[in-house]
Amino acid sequence: MRAASDAGIRKICAPVLVGPLDIFRQAVPLIRKTLVLNKTTLPPRAGTTLGIVDVGDGIAADITHGTPTKTSGRSAGLAIERAVELCVNGKADAMVTAPASKEALHLAGYNFPGQTEMVTLFSRSQKVVMMLVSKVLRVGLVTVHTPLASVPGQINKDKILEKLQLMHDTLLRDFRVKKPKIAVLGLNPHAGEHGHIGTEETACIIPSIDAAVAAGIACEGPFPADAFFGTKRYQAFDAILAMYHDQGLIPLKLLSFGRAVNVSAGLPIIRTSPDHGTAYDIAGRGIAKPASMIEAIRLAVSMVRARSGARS
Amino acid sequence: MRAASDAGIRKICAPVLVGPLDIFRQAVPLIRKTLVLNKTTLPPRAGTTLGIVDVGDGIAADITHGTPTKTSGRSAGLAIERAVELCVNGKADAMVTAPASKEALHLAGYNFPGQTEMVTLFSRSQKVVMMLVSKVLRVGLVTVHTPLASVPGQINKDKILEKLQLMHDTLLRDFRVKKPKIAVLGLNPHAGEHGHIGTEETACIIPSIDAAVAAGIACEGPFPADAFFGTKRYQAFDAILAMYHDQGLIPLKLLSFGRAVNVSAGLPIIRTSPDHGTAYDIAGRGIAKPASMIEAIRLAVSMVRARSGARS
Repeated sequence: MRAASDAGIRKICAPVLVGPLDIFRQAVPLIRKTLVLNKTTLPPRAGTTLGIVDVGDGIAADITHGTPTKTSGRSAGLAIERAVELCVNGKADAMVTAPASKEALHLAGYNFPGQTEMVTLFSRSQKVVMMLVSKVLRVGLVTVHTPLASVPGQINKDKILEKLQLMHDTLLRDFRVKKPKIAVLGLNPHAGEHGHIGTEETACIIPSIDAAVAAGIACEGPFPADAFFGTKRYQAFDAILAMYHDQGLIPLKLLSFGRAVNVSAGLPIIRTSPDHGTAYDIAGRGIAKPASMIEAIRLAVSMVRARSGARS
Repeated sequence: MRAASDAGIRKICAPVLVGPLDIFRQAVPLIRKTLVLNKTTLPPRAGTTLGIVDVGDGIAADITHGTPTKTSGRSAGLAIERAVELCVNGKADAMVTAPASKEALHLAGYNFPGQTEMVTLFSRSQKVVMMLVSKVLRVGLVTVHTPLASVPGQINKDKILEKLQLMHDTLLRDFRVKKPKIAVLGLNPHAGEHGHIGTEETACIIPSIDAAVAAGIACEGPFPADAFFGTKRYQAFDAILAMYHDQGLIPLKLLSFGRAVNVSAGLPIIRTSPDHGTAYDIAGRGIAKPASMIEAIRLAVSMVRARSGARS
């Protein structure tokens, strides 16, 4: 709510909150802002009131700050479904998701590894690449919330090629990069050292890079991840494809903590989100910082402009 | 040779080069320094000449800069063996290894994953923990040059506990940290999210931390690696134990590239080395930068002083 009512944000877009009106009402005094909340129909109009698309009449009584429940999960899930629908139908230009408790979503029957997979399915898409974007670097992930032991089995030539294609397209379409150049990291220490430390580089990463280059995508690698970041080589690329969560997110967060935005790239709709979690330990205290959410909204607006500019 | 003849280094120790005298002689004009090289017996005396412990009479003719051969590998292997022996016998206080080609070492029959394992065996040790040390952070690794697919299988409670014990001891003995505090990273994304993303945290990492704490070692974790570095939490610890190569070395190199030193911690002898490789692409051109090697020598000297201070 702090982010949506931020003066700078109101200047660049007309934000609408999707969720239970009762919960938003409870939150107004917590954030110590004078806000008028009104149910709205879409498309929204810019104004002093904050529009709400209500998805959970009368559920507020069942929700306790900081406690994941079936009700809170259902409310979050419905909000995500509804927001996707508004984007797919063209009633909203983009969606920005707040963090949601995976535990609560699971209790409510939304059995997804994360919101990215929900948004992908609800928008009837088959392919997506999770990207983390800051002013310093853009990182895409081949695997996301995968146990490390399962990562090597989930890396294959087709999947890497697909992620490269999606990143290439999103750099062109959503980030207006004219000739996108993508770096691909190795999976193993020293990027496998020519097959001496693991075989995935020679078996699938190098073939996928070759196939991508043949398809007109400028990409290079596989780079040994530690030296790649240590020597600041990342600065020469428009985006980096990492093989697994920590390989991409350790450098991303070191270089851009609190200023990175999560982008579901490759979808028909635009979806961004902040790079932090639910922070249930401070829920309901009115002290959450809106900076990362504001960045997420700003990036969504810039992607909307890039896409509409590309159409014109 | 640049590092060993550096004026600052000569002030704090009496360096002796272990290797083929002929090769060192060939290198003198390349580095454009006036150096007198002399075969020496140990312990060395400080002076204007640079002492050489010759390990390969007459092999220079067979060695070409930048080409790993059986001869060059044999020469490197013999130098490492000899240097360990000098340390074990108390004729040298510490050894600092230059990068060596693993390929050449293998050609010569030294079938080790790296120099750390050679130094461990030659010093008749059973246990070692590879640590990377800079002024910003100290990182220990549970697994080093292990293919990523084999990492989960090589993580177990006893091994993590052993590494924690070695790191604790080395922080006390070699780094003069009075009450060492060690952070332990998780293996999986979000440190397994309470068993939802992988089981290694609950099955072995947490039990090893509990056992270490019971043994009087102050350690905490497992931390999700990305947030741990992103929030600068590492600043509250004297050292960090990472589960695998890139998890520890991506942040280390991002924060300290070219200024980190590799330490074989937990050995009876002191061994350090720079954090770069052989750089065969610039071999013989006289342009290698000595900064990291100088750091490695400085750290070795400081460890010698810490140990002898601890003895007195």
